[in-house]
Amino acid sequence: MVEIIELNQIKKVLKEIDVSQVIQAIEEGFVAYSQGKVVVPPIGEMIFKNPPGDVHIKYGYIIDDDYYVIKIASGFYENPKIGFPSGNGLMLLFSQKTGELICILVDEGFLTNVRTAAAGAVVAKYLAPKKIHKVGIFGAGVQGRMQLEYLKYVRDFSEVIVWGINEDELKKYKDEMEKKGFRIKTTLEAEEVASRCNLIVTCTPSTRPLLQAHQIQEGTHITAIGSDTPQKQELDPEILRKAERIVVDSRSQALQRGECFKALEAGVIRESDMVELGEVISNSSLWRQSEEEFTVADLTGVAVQDIQISKAVWKTITSGTTLWQGE
Amino acid sequence: MVEIIELNQIKKVLKEIDVSQVIQAIEEGFVAYSQGKVVVPPIGEMIFKNPPGDVHIKYGYIIDDDYYVIKIASGFYENPKIGFPSGNGLMLLFSQKTGELICILVDEGFLTNVRTAAAGAVVAKYLAPKKIHKVGIFGAGVQGRMQLEYLKYVRDFSEVIVWGINEDELKKYKDEMEKKGFRIKTTLEAEEVASRCNLIVTCTPSTRPLLQAHQIQEGTHITAIGSDTPQKQELDPEILRKAERIVVDSRSQALQRGECFKALEAGVIRESDMVELGEVISNSSLWRQSEEEFTVADLTGVAVQDIQISKAVWKTITSGTTLWQGE
Repeated sequence: MVEIIELNQIKKVLKEIDVSQVIQAIEEGFVAYSQGKVVVPPIGEMIFKNPPGDVHIKYGYIIDDDYYVIKIASGFYENPKIGFPSGNGLMLLFSQKTGELICILVDEGFLTNVRTAAAGAVVAKYLAPKKIHKVGIFGAGVQGRMQLEYLKYVRDFSEVIVWGINEDELKKYKDEMEKKGFRIKTTLEAEEVASRCNLIVTCTPSTRPLLQAHQIQEGTHITAIGSDTPQKQELDPEILRKAERIVVDSRSQALQRGECFKALEAGVIRESDMVELGEVISNSSLWRQSEEEFTVADLTGVAVQDIQISKAVWKTITSGTTLWQGE
Repeated sequence: MVEIIELNQIKKVLKEIDVSQVIQAIEEGFVAYSQGKVVVPPIGEMIFKNPPGDVHIKYGYIIDDDYYVIKIASGFYENPKIGFPSGNGLMLLFSQKTGELICILVDEGFLTNVRTAAAGAVVAKYLAPKKIHKVGIFGAGVQGRMQLEYLKYVRDFSEVIVWGINEDELKKYKDEMEKKGFRIKTTLEAEEVASRCNLIVTCTPSTRPLLQAHQIQEGTHITAIGSDTPQKQELDPEILRKAERIVVDSRSQALQRGECFKALEAGVIRESDMVELGEVISNSSLWRQSEEEFTVADLTGVAVQDIQISKAVWKTITSGTTLWQGE
C-alpha cells in the first residue's frame, strides 16, 4: 500500500522537525552534490499552449543512498482565473534498492519553497557577516517570508527591510511577519535596502536588475534566489564582478541560467570565479573571512535539495515521533 | 484529494471495461500518434549499480486532449531473491488544462501489459488473415497469455501452439489457458509453430532469432512484441526482407530498437519499407489485401498507449458504472 501524504499532512510533519535538521539535511545534500555523489539526469519538460502551461520532471539520487526522488512541478498561468493556484507539484520517493514506490508527497510545490528557504540559510551560515545590521528582502511573496524564518536559525537579527512592488503586498507582509517577531520596515526603493542591510536575499521573478553595484556596502552578503531561468535577473552583473566570492549551488546550472549566466554573458566574470556551495561548506578557507568581505551567492535550485527534503519528511513520519497520522 | 488506485482496483475496473473499447482506445492512440498529434519527449532514465536496477520515465500527451500522463517503470533484477517482483511501475494522470494531478494508477506494470496486449489485437485486426488456422505464441509468460485473450476479440480461433523454453512453464501455461477455453498444444520446436500457425505473436526477451525465414508459410502474419531494445531480437532479419508489409508502431523507435533496427543494421530492409500502424489503420489500402500475403509487425511500445490506457481506466472509474469503490 502506497503512502500518499497531502499538503496539510506535510505541513504538520514539518512543524515537528527541528528546522536546524532540515538545514543540516540540505547542507549535506550540497556537499554530496559537489563531491560528485549525486546523479541528476536532464530535466524532462512538456510545454502546453492551450491553455499555456509547463511541466518539469526533475529526478535524481545520491549514489548508494536508500532512495531516489522524482519531482513533478507544473505552472498553468491561467489557473488563478478559475480559482486554482498556478503552481502545482508533487514528489515521489522510491527505494533505490528495489524500485518500490515508498510515498507520494503531494506538496503542491510547498517542499520546493522549504528546500529553497533552507538553502538560503545554508548560504548565510557560511557567508553572511557574523553581525547582521538588518536583513534586506527583495520580494514580499512566499519565499520572501520563508527566507526570514529559516535565516533566524543561523544568524541573530530582528530588523528587516522588505522591498516590494506595491504597498498592498508590503502591508500584508509586514502584518504577517511582525506577528512572527520580526521588525519589518517596507520600501519601494532598492537603495534603502542596499544602504542599510548587510545580508540581502532577492527572491523575485524579476527580469531586470533590481540592485546596482554602486549601491552595495562593504561587508554585505547577497543571496540571489529568484532567477532560475536564462531570462530572469535580479542583480546588475557588475555586482558579481565586484564580489570577492561568487558561490553557486550548481556550477553547471550557473553556466546556463541565473545571475552568473547573465554576468558570464556580459563578460564581467569567468567560470573560474565561481565556487560551489558544497565546496564552500567542506573547506573553511572558503567561508567568510572577515566582516568586510562582499560576497554573492546565486542559487538556481538543484534536485539534491528535493531528495533531501523528501527524505527528511518521510523519515520523520516513519520515526514514529510525529502525531500527523489520524489528525 | 488525489485518487490513488492500486493494482487490485485497476484489475477490477478492467474487468468491467469492454475489451473492445480498450482495443479501440489504443487504436485511436496509434492514429493520433501517426498524425503527429502526440507529443512524446525523450525518455528519462536512471541506472543503478548496487543492486542493479533501472528506472524509466516515459511521458507525453495528445495535443488538445484533457490529460497528460507520466509513467514510471523500474526493473530491479535482484528483487526476486527477496520475494519481490523485479518489475514495478505506476502511471500518473494529470489535467492538461490545469496541471492538477488527477489520479495515480499504481499498476505495478500491469497496464503496460494490457496496452501491449491491446496493441497486438489492433495489429491483428488489420493485418492477420481472416481465417486463422492456429495461433502461434512464442513465450509462455504474462504477455504470451494476454495476447491470446485480446486476440479473440478480433479473430475467431481456439487452437494455439505455444513455444517455450521448458516443459514446466509450458505445462502451467496450458493448464491455465485451457481453463479459459483455448485448446493449447505446447512445443519446444519453433518449426512446429511456424509450419502450422498463420498468426504468430512473439513475446520473449530473446536476444537471438527464434524464427527463421525459410520456416514461414505463405499467408502468415507475425507480430513481434518482445524486442524493445537494440539488443533483443526474436526474428531472423531475412523474415523482414521476405515480408510483403512491415508495420511498426513508431518509425522513429524502429530505427533504434527492435526487429527493424536489426534488419536495417543487416542491410536487408530500408526505412522506406516500414509503415506506421496508425497509417495502416487510417488507410484501407494498407490493410491485409489477401489470405496469401505475408506480413510482419514490429512493436516497441509507444507512450500514447500508456496515455490511452490510463485515460480508459480513469474514465471508467468516474463514469460511475463501476463497482470498484469500497470493495
